[in-house]
Amino acid sequence: MAKLTIVAEPGKQEIFMTRMFNAPREAVFKAHTDTKAIPEWWGQRNSTTTVDKMEVREGGRWRFVERGADGVEYGFHGVYHAIVVPERIVQTFEFEGVPGHVLLETFTLEERDGVTTLTSQSVYQSVEDRDGMVQSGMEEGANESMDRLEELLGRMG
Amino acid sequence: MAKLTIVAEPGKQEIFMTRMFNAPREAVFKAHTDTKAIPEWWGQRNSTTTVDKMEVREGGRWRFVERGADGVEYGFHGVYHAIVVPERIVQTFEFEGVPGHVLLETFTLEERDGVTTLTSQSVYQSVEDRDGMVQSGMEEGANESMDRLEELLGRMG
Repeated sequence: MAKLTIVAEPGKQEIFMTRMFNAPREAVFKAHTDTKAIPEWWGQRNSTTTVDKMEVREGGRWRFVERGADGVEYGFHGVYHAIVVPERIVQTFEFEGVPGHVLLETFTLEERDGVTTLTSQSVYQSVEDRDGMVQSGMEEGANESMDRLEELLGRMG
Repeated sequence: MAKLTIVAEPGKQEIFMTRMFNAPREAVFKAHTDTKAIPEWWGQRNSTTTVDKMEVREGGRWRFVERGADGVEYGFHGVYHAIVVPERIVQTFEFEGVPGHVLLETFTLEERDGVTTLTSQSVYQSVEDRDGMVQSGMEEGANESMDRLEELLGRMG
C-alpha cells in the first residue's frame, strides 16, 4: 500500500494526511472506534497505549495514555463531535503536555474496490502551533502509527 | 467604546473579532459564563435565547436555543475545552442547522485602566466554511450581540 502523504501548505493552520489501506472501510472505522483496537496501533511501536475513556458518540469524551519505553506517560484527550459510521469522525484533540492548545480533527474514510483511503485533517489554533507540530517529528510518528494500523487490519482481515 | 473590529484575512480559515468594553474583565468573563447573563445579550435583539445546558468546566457541554421573532428555534452547542478565570475560554461551537461543521473558538480578555478588550478567534474546518459565515451577515449579528453585552455590563456596573 502507498505510504502516508502529509500536506501542510505554508501559511495555513491545517495538516492533511492520507493513507490507503487494503481493507474495507468498516474495518478501518472500527479500528478507530473500538476500545480493544486502539492499544494495537495507536502511538509508537515501543510504547504502550491504554484507553482511559472512550465514549464513541457525539459529545462523548476520549482519553488515551501513552507510556513510553522510558516509563514516562503522556495523556491525550478530546471530545467526539460527529460519528458517522463508517465514513466520518470529527473530534477534538489535546496533548495534556500543552493544555489549552486544541486541535480539531476530521477523519474521512472512502472505499473503492476494497481499498480504503483514510484522510485526516487537523486544524490548529494558529500557523505557529501547526508548524511546531510538523517540526516535532510528527511525520515519523504518524507513519509508524499508520504502519501499525495496517498490520492490525491484516490480522483482522 | 470602539465598535467591533472583524478581521478575516483572505485564504485563511479563521476570523478574529475584537471589542472594547468599559468594564473590568471579571464582569465580561462572568457575562460569558453565567447562566442568567447569557439570555440578556446572546443572539439578536428581537429573539429570545434560553440556556438548555451550561456546564462551565473543561469537558463540560453548553447548548443554547435562540427563538426568533417568527417563532423558529435555532440550536447551538459545543464543549468547553479551557476555562481560565477571568482571562480565557476555549470552546467548540456548532450550529445545529449544519451538523458536523465545528468551529473552535478562543476568547481572550485583557484589561487596562478599567477597559477590557475581548478578542475572539474562530477557527473553521475550511476557508469555504469561514467565507460562508462571513457572507451570512455574521458581522451585523455579532455587532448587535456585542452592543447588547455592552448594555448589560452598563446595567451590572
